[in-house]
Amino acid sequence: MDRDKILLTPGPLTTTLQTKLAMLRDWGSWDSDFNELTARVRDSLLKILNAQATHVVVPLQGSGTFSVEAAVTTVVPRDGHLLVLDNGAYCKRAVRIAEQAGRKVSMLSFDESQAVDPLALATKLDSDKSITQVFLVHCETGTGVLNPLQEVADVCARYGVGLIVDAMSSFGALNIDAASVPFDALIAASGKCLEGVPGMGFVFLKKSLIERCKGNCQSLSMDLIDQYHYMERTGQWRFTPPTHVVAALHEAIRQFNEEGGQSARLARYRANCAALISGMTGLGLKLFLEPRLQAPIIVTFHAPTFQGYSFKALYESVRAKGFVLYPGKLTSIETFRVGCIGAIEVNEIEQAVHAVSCALSEFRK
Amino acid sequence: MDRDKILLTPGPLTTTLQTKLAMLRDWGSWDSDFNELTARVRDSLLKILNAQATHVVVPLQGSGTFSVEAAVTTVVPRDGHLLVLDNGAYCKRAVRIAEQAGRKVSMLSFDESQAVDPLALATKLDSDKSITQVFLVHCETGTGVLNPLQEVADVCARYGVGLIVDAMSSFGALNIDAASVPFDALIAASGKCLEGVPGMGFVFLKKSLIERCKGNCQSLSMDLIDQYHYMERTGQWRFTPPTHVVAALHEAIRQFNEEGGQSARLARYRANCAALISGMTGLGLKLFLEPRLQAPIIVTFHAPTFQGYSFKALYESVRAKGFVLYPGKLTSIETFRVGCIGAIEVNEIEQAVHAVSCALSEFRK
Repeated sequence: MDRDKILLTPGPLTTTLQTKLAMLRDWGSWDSDFNELTARVRDSLLKILNAQATHVVVPLQGSGTFSVEAAVTTVVPRDGHLLVLDNGAYCKRAVRIAEQAGRKVSMLSFDESQAVDPLALATKLDSDKSITQVFLVHCETGTGVLNPLQEVADVCARYGVGLIVDAMSSFGALNIDAASVPFDALIAASGKCLEGVPGMGFVFLKKSLIERCKGNCQSLSMDLIDQYHYMERTGQWRFTPPTHVVAALHEAIRQFNEEGGQSARLARYRANCAALISGMTGLGLKLFLEPRLQAPIIVTFHAPTFQGYSFKALYESVRAKGFVLYPGKLTSIETFRVGCIGAIEVNEIEQAVHAVSCALSEFRK
Repeated sequence: MDRDKILLTPGPLTTTLQTKLAMLRDWGSWDSDFNELTARVRDSLLKILNAQATHVVVPLQGSGTFSVEAAVTTVVPRDGHLLVLDNGAYCKRAVRIAEQAGRKVSMLSFDESQAVDPLALATKLDSDKSITQVFLVHCETGTGVLNPLQEVADVCARYGVGLIVDAMSSFGALNIDAASVPFDALIAASGKCLEGVPGMGFVFLKKSLIERCKGNCQSLSMDLIDQYHYMERTGQWRFTPPTHVVAALHEAIRQFNEEGGQSARLARYRANCAALISGMTGLGLKLFLEPRLQAPIIVTFHAPTFQGYSFKALYESVRAKGFVLYPGKLTSIETFRVGCIGAIEVNEIEQAVHAVSCALSEFRK
């Protein structure tokens, strides 16, 4: 039957019908009704981060990566020097963004199975005084590892360098308090833990940076300062907004608050993650990460070791049963990933584990 | 009552319920079903332009302006020289894009009430051999003026310079045949005359440019060559696609073809435009453009001259009756704009004219 599949992916993910129904309306992008929608979304986002006093939030059209690029190219001056704390695919993408934009960029690399090390960062900042900003991926969905945001932020603050946080997969689920975690910019997107649909990102920018970052960005579309000033002046987006995506995010945030906000969402994702790990390890599958490093967002498993295994075959078999898995993103070790996020509960996770179990039995025949 | 308003705007515009219903499903961005959707959309777009032999099409997340920027920064080399044929707001935006990206850019300016002049372009190209690309807005929605695409393309071909066409508001409605109009790049978006929802653009790129344009773009997100190669290799988008927007565009294109394609759409928009002009001039409102320059996309009217008129008041009054007008975009003359495009027919236009008539009577009281 043509039943909607459950997406066990790090976004786009499964959203509620209520969220999708919010898209059954056309909005004039110049209209006051739509401006109010945008304003309410921005207010809600600031509240989630407790950032009203310290930061502004600038929504941006496009995928989350567009917002990462906008943050990097708006915040890092043309003669700046970005240090990327690298333990995965999304860190390496930030390096590529900075390089292509002509910024000086260095990497401090860690094993993909490990969190980044704040002490190593301090040593690096001691030895290279030219670094102006540090880039950290909070939850590196390449593996699912949780990086120590607070400790990294504290080191950056101590050395007086800026911090750019890719919180794409953690914002809304993990607790981040702008009052205690100092950062220049923090990035997330509509189609992640807020459980909206994909199509826009947003960047929290430190208020004191707004004037200082003017002129950094070589891209009009990605220029967060220009986007910010226009939005403040007119209440509108500079260029055509993805109106239906904004409306869906507005509705998704309403449900987020109704559920109980970040702590309730985290509790649900933690339960999903525990059910997933318990179920999958029960099937003999092995976790890639040590449990203490695992964020309750996406879990990487080693590929089964029996002969004839292929991810494609596992994917197709589980998909036929109604669940969409996600491929691994490691170059040297064969893995696959399963997301715990989206509008799903332990029930869906248990059904997915059952589907994986059936698929593995088919292989073993 | 909370009835959906009719958007008489140049996009986002009124879409059919069927198009919006296509968004009631979540898609895995890695899934083969979604890849097929993307592939079918790309095939359809090439066919609309008869460009299968000569061009590729590269979809891009974000608003149409993002795609304009992507085209300019991918096609114009870093040491290139872009000439913008300027007769309106969207031409000036292209200048800003090129300037911010560090490209040398010149303007050949015409009055906003006039089409650009291919003879003046030839003279300019005679006198400045450093120009590498010309930028033309096909239908300048700042006023609604139709520019002579074929003639401009012919001049560019004769002088051996590239042509970048912003066909945002014309693609799908006006006839453009890639077999007879030579161009390097042509840009449009989902939420315009194809009557999808906003959230993605697409750029037609001349096949022979794909290798030559590598390395031009300073932005990873905007790099059409990288986006193209990744999509060809994997069938997927490089970064999270706006899945629901793509699904809506797929459904909108199905309806476009069912209606009879570009010629049928043009006929409907022409009828809308004729009804609008006849109705509004019947109310004593004056057209900003000479009729021969008017594209059947969006029509600019001079503001009424009686005392106490304000666009805001007109807008609110007409809006309360269910229709959303669009402000003017001219700096020196007070105007307002009314779109003819979207999932609307003469019936809706006549009702809108009636609403304007009632609003004007209220003013005159």
